[in-house]
Amino acid sequence: MGDEAQRLAEIVGEHHLLTGEDVSEDYAGDESLVGEPVTPKYVVKPATAAEVAAVLAVATEHRIPVTARGSGSGLSAAARPHPDGILVSFERMNAILEIDTTNHVAVVQPGVTLSELDSQTAASGLGYTVYPGEMSASIGGNVGTNAGGMRAVKYGVTRNNVLGLQAVLPTGEVIRTGGKTVKTSTGYDLTQLVIGSEGTLALATEITVRLHPRLTHGATVLAPFGDLDQVMTAVPAIVSSGLAPHVLEYIDALTMAAITYTAQLSLGIPDEVRDATQAYLVVGLESREADRLDGDVETLGELLGELGATDVYVLEGGSARKLIEAREKAFWTAKTAGADDVIDVVVPRAAMPEFLRRAREVAAGTESGVVGCGHAGDGNVHLAIFQKDPAKRASLLHDIFAMAMELGGAISGEHGIGRAKKEHFLELEDPAKIELMKRVKAAFDPAGILNPGVLFD
Amino acid sequence: MGDEAQRLAEIVGEHHLLTGEDVSEDYAGDESLVGEPVTPKYVVKPATAAEVAAVLAVATEHRIPVTARGSGSGLSAAARPHPDGILVSFERMNAILEIDTTNHVAVVQPGVTLSELDSQTAASGLGYTVYPGEMSASIGGNVGTNAGGMRAVKYGVTRNNVLGLQAVLPTGEVIRTGGKTVKTSTGYDLTQLVIGSEGTLALATEITVRLHPRLTHGATVLAPFGDLDQVMTAVPAIVSSGLAPHVLEYIDALTMAAITYTAQLSLGIPDEVRDATQAYLVVGLESREADRLDGDVETLGELLGELGATDVYVLEGGSARKLIEAREKAFWTAKTAGADDVIDVVVPRAAMPEFLRRAREVAAGTESGVVGCGHAGDGNVHLAIFQKDPAKRASLLHDIFAMAMELGGAISGEHGIGRAKKEHFLELEDPAKIELMKRVKAAFDPAGILNPGVLFD
Repeated sequence: MGDEAQRLAEIVGEHHLLTGEDVSEDYAGDESLVGEPVTPKYVVKPATAAEVAAVLAVATEHRIPVTARGSGSGLSAAARPHPDGILVSFERMNAILEIDTTNHVAVVQPGVTLSELDSQTAASGLGYTVYPGEMSASIGGNVGTNAGGMRAVKYGVTRNNVLGLQAVLPTGEVIRTGGKTVKTSTGYDLTQLVIGSEGTLALATEITVRLHPRLTHGATVLAPFGDLDQVMTAVPAIVSSGLAPHVLEYIDALTMAAITYTAQLSLGIPDEVRDATQAYLVVGLESREADRLDGDVETLGELLGELGATDVYVLEGGSARKLIEAREKAFWTAKTAGADDVIDVVVPRAAMPEFLRRAREVAAGTESGVVGCGHAGDGNVHLAIFQKDPAKRASLLHDIFAMAMELGGAISGEHGIGRAKKEHFLELEDPAKIELMKRVKAAFDPAGILNPGVLFD
Repeated sequence: MGDEAQRLAEIVGEHHLLTGEDVSEDYAGDESLVGEPVTPKYVVKPATAAEVAAVLAVATEHRIPVTARGSGSGLSAAARPHPDGILVSFERMNAILEIDTTNHVAVVQPGVTLSELDSQTAASGLGYTVYPGEMSASIGGNVGTNAGGMRAVKYGVTRNNVLGLQAVLPTGEVIRTGGKTVKTSTGYDLTQLVIGSEGTLALATEITVRLHPRLTHGATVLAPFGDLDQVMTAVPAIVSSGLAPHVLEYIDALTMAAITYTAQLSLGIPDEVRDATQAYLVVGLESREADRLDGDVETLGELLGELGATDVYVLEGGSARKLIEAREKAFWTAKTAGADDVIDVVVPRAAMPEFLRRAREVAAGTESGVVGCGHAGDGNVHLAIFQKDPAKRASLLHDIFAMAMELGGAISGEHGIGRAKKEHFLELEDPAKIELMKRVKAAFDPAGILNPGVLFD
């Protein structure tokens, strides 16, 4: 082993440093459909913030690229390592350090999965409300991408639910930002800056997340619409209603066919209704009290009717859960169906009809397939792209991203830019902002070791 | 006029540049009780982002300090100008550019006051939910300090309610961050970085804020407690209840006496209850429906009884509004009463009893008076400090801030650091974080023109 390998082994222990043939394929990337896996030179599995700090200090000294990895469920290749680099896997830093039921927070290590946190908080009647659709995702990874998911329409995204961090700077210093307080105005908000920075500024080694009371009564309402535009114009009306849905999803007819087929799920929708449907809204409501929930479901049903739904179905517990799960697995369905990319443009809620109409026009012009679903309440449109030709696909994506930005939106709502969308990001984003972000990056990471190639070249 | 004065006059127009005797006392500071007013060399009143950009470009070229001013209602002297500097007053940039009822946002210029925005949004049934207690405050100022206020317990602080900015960098570049979208994961979140930066990173020239549906039915409940500790332990229980109060304030007995006396407000509390009260909770509830509100008030009343309230009063509309107003004017009451400083420490909610007990002990040890009220649901404690001797006062503040940090809190929850608390901030905060923040500052402002002396020396 070389000098740097030896120092890494001393820091994390020989058993927790992998090199050469010991580095399995699992560490070579995330779930992005774009680009090829890359095996890193080293995988280190630190157990403490001090070990992470020591690893980063070595990396800065030797100018070795460092990529962080949680569960590897990201979709933008931000966890795809550098071939000469160190992959810091947080698999051993997977402890829930505290569930504080008085302050309504949990303090966790970055490798904790959403599933683990959910099950450990259940008894307290509190829960973490970020559900990006993949419960094996790690909280550290969620911080990296500013993960969102279905419930963001009510509870916000990761950014709104992380109160504090312990983070290791690339220079090896360990800092604490924020904490168990819900607000602060004491210097720059470094917590918010690190969230969504895709492992390029600092590595979170401890995360304080908000917990919310679990509302015990829930219902899922499914509403087919004959026209996609109607679905989209219904969304702001539902948001305005004060019903405060915790799920507000649209699913186009083709995606619904695919996900229900994959999940072997029958929703009991009559053939004639289904055949006349262009898209569905799925609305989740929850309440402290059963009778209030009943009242809200009734109000929602009437509202959906006024807004043009051809029918309204209140799904039973089992099928409701299965439909939500099937929707969460839409990425896997798209992958199985041979999708060449999956994107998650965000636009102002009211711009969704125009965005979708124009996206389909552009797709038709390039003989590409574009189908999707999305977090309608957030204006976050998930599209599966079917176009085998890389040049045509790049041109299509460029046009779709440019259109989203023209409508006041952004390239990604929750998946991040990573390596997968960097080229478009750098081309379409205001150069003054890119330069400013690069200077901010240099303020954190003067040696440029953290995730080079992600966000910037 | 010198060369720089002439260039400034050319940019904003002669009538909108003030110098010398024309600069009135109004521009010499904000409402901070600490330090003396400072008359700036120039006051400029730009009308557009392009004018702001041109002013900053001149300032960077000539290394002239620049301080931004909204309504001047800040409490940390962040709007106190530099004697050789330019004060950029946003009084002419006070237009509401758009109220977008479909996307639930308003786009405003920084000089728009909360009062103006509130009245202009009323007809839409939507509203901006940041109420820092001073409706003449400007939205630009709110962005600078990350203002909070009573309703933050339900709706969050400024940070949670600003979606996008147009901002001018000190180098004169105009950028746009975020927008009408509720989420994004596309590069670093520059919106969040500028919010709370107290005019040291960039000047916001356009602000996109979230609007929320106005819930039409509201009630205010007042609960006296014989013991301050009981008030504080009641708070997390109310937050956990799922009742989702939009106001959750504590007011200690002395502060209640002062603010009701000043407001000439009688709450109809019997003498024997009042005399046995150490502190009060004020809880505001709101609902879409009158009968749900009634149910919630009843549930809250029972809960308060279980939590040790000696009585529960549901205040009538008029006295409820007056009490809330009186609470909002607590700063003015404290000022009239001769307070020497007003601070707004934040601690984890559950740490409030210990914090207040220890703060009173420290105060007693230095023969200082410390009375207060606060946003109990947020752990944000507002204390009026009575201690004439500057050295004793500095020592007392140091001890109080250190104690808040030891309990996991921060020096300021919503007022900011400004010039008033900078000495304590620089002394108590982790030097690695201070250095990192300074590097971030330099990334935005290489010439160091924006608000030098605020946050850092």
